[in-house]
Amino acid sequence: MDQIRVVFLGTGAAAPTRERNVSSLAVILDGATLLFDCGEGTQHQIMRSSVRPGSIDAIFITHLHGDHLFGLPGLLASLGLNGRSRDLQLVGPPGLARFIAAIPYRGTPYSISVLESEGGAVYVGLGFRVDAALLEHSVPCLGFSVIEDDRPGTFDVARAAALGVPAGPLFGLLQRGSPVSVGDRVIHPEEVLGSTRPGRRVTFCTDTRPCSASVSLAWRSDVLIHEATYTSDLAAEAASRHHSTAAEAAAVARDADAASLILTHISARYASPAALLAEAAAVFPRVTAASDFIEIVVPAARPPAAS
Amino acid sequence: MDQIRVVFLGTGAAAPTRERNVSSLAVILDGATLLFDCGEGTQHQIMRSSVRPGSIDAIFITHLHGDHLFGLPGLLASLGLNGRSRDLQLVGPPGLARFIAAIPYRGTPYSISVLESEGGAVYVGLGFRVDAALLEHSVPCLGFSVIEDDRPGTFDVARAAALGVPAGPLFGLLQRGSPVSVGDRVIHPEEVLGSTRPGRRVTFCTDTRPCSASVSLAWRSDVLIHEATYTSDLAAEAASRHHSTAAEAAAVARDADAASLILTHISARYASPAALLAEAAAVFPRVTAASDFIEIVVPAARPPAAS
Repeated sequence: MDQIRVVFLGTGAAAPTRERNVSSLAVILDGATLLFDCGEGTQHQIMRSSVRPGSIDAIFITHLHGDHLFGLPGLLASLGLNGRSRDLQLVGPPGLARFIAAIPYRGTPYSISVLESEGGAVYVGLGFRVDAALLEHSVPCLGFSVIEDDRPGTFDVARAAALGVPAGPLFGLLQRGSPVSVGDRVIHPEEVLGSTRPGRRVTFCTDTRPCSASVSLAWRSDVLIHEATYTSDLAAEAASRHHSTAAEAAAVARDADAASLILTHISARYASPAALLAEAAAVFPRVTAASDFIEIVVPAARPPAAS
Repeated sequence: MDQIRVVFLGTGAAAPTRERNVSSLAVILDGATLLFDCGEGTQHQIMRSSVRPGSIDAIFITHLHGDHLFGLPGLLASLGLNGRSRDLQLVGPPGLARFIAAIPYRGTPYSISVLESEGGAVYVGLGFRVDAALLEHSVPCLGFSVIEDDRPGTFDVARAAALGVPAGPLFGLLQRGSPVSVGDRVIHPEEVLGSTRPGRRVTFCTDTRPCSASVSLAWRSDVLIHEATYTSDLAAEAASRHHSTAAEAAAVARDADAASLILTHISARYASPAALLAEAAAVFPRVTAASDFIEIVVPAARPPAAS
């Protein structure tokens, strides 16, 4: 797999503003497009972004609050109008299927499969899977982690030649982890492959209090996208409304040993995310703030862990 | 009542485009704001328009297809977040109440009353009422007409004085239609009032085939807003999809003796409405095409009927 890209489609909280639409983002892998959350107007944002709606393979809904959900009926309808015929997978917390069933005159010319989950593996694609975990919000809410399969170590061509393996199909077998016979000798993959490289990991936690479930789900993520609805002066409001402050999001990133943190779900009261960023950076320096339509490329190799 | 104003919020068909959002418009009268249709993204359009969302008194849904409906859950939620406490009236075809009931975690801090109608008087405001009629679409679909109360005729001050009526409270009684006694003589209102002036009328017909129900509902409307999804070369498609061509919309305006026609619900295939306008004008010349965010002031007096 080459590039993994995150496209932010809606980075605000609760209600749309002129600057930030309600929650949605796309994770685009080689040959797969995954949408996470679908607030009202997501199809409008997609139209203005690099995401091709027909390429969406699955839609993951964190929870059934409107700012994460109410764009779904319209997107489903427009996919049908655009001629979609292949199946679409939906994943979300319990209640999602009932919401989908209540859409009047849905009549989409493709099949929709709804997986209601309270955590665990929820989707498997070519070279990756998606895990979910129940976070801590006022209603059942899932965090999601896109986890690339571990990649085989680098193939040592010189070493293989020295062991007498002829170039050709046997190289491929070794690269894919199978032992091969050369004359009367068996060559094992580990003799010619460097150590396995862990797959990349992108984790999305919104809406939630900082919690151990987020830390586990985000463990050593290359990119952790975490809600940061409030600054620390509103910590009490963050707690009572089951949200996080920017500093709390940063503590999750630190405790999860994440490589980078992106703040999202930013309250309309902040014209600029500067204060949120400053508070987060004091806890976890490798932090930035999302804005609608920015795109992030997940680094191919994880930087050394912070000391 | 002074001004009646129509604000177009979404003038496209089926799915949003960069130029036209899906269906919605506001009719703003003295002290009343009525929303008709609420396609996805209507709250976003309202935010960019002169309509104050908190001033909305009632929302009328023509039918339960998504491009007329899917913005309603988000608008209801945002009205609540903005602190609305007064009741909200919803009006639409049968099935609307079930759709509203299926919204997860609605929790709006105000009461919602849903009137499901198949035609007739559906709303009464100060100085106006709203009538509905069942049109001809693939699913139950209502047209709506905002009908200003008839206004009393002009008070003839000189005539009243000549009849011996003293200036003061008796003038007011006569203006409001009550007879008054002056000495031993009774003066009747019709002796000092010109003939009653009919109230203004704004009618909204979408989505529908041209039909007699539209003609009746739109009868002598000052402004008829009618869907015109297609040009005449696609008349067969208009018929099979239960829509209207621009020429068919114009024929409804002509048959209803409307003062003016505004075309809306325009298919995304038309980059410009020029062809739609030309075909409509050949049938009914007082026609224009809506675009998102245009505002129309309903004329205070109806022009003479076309010959």
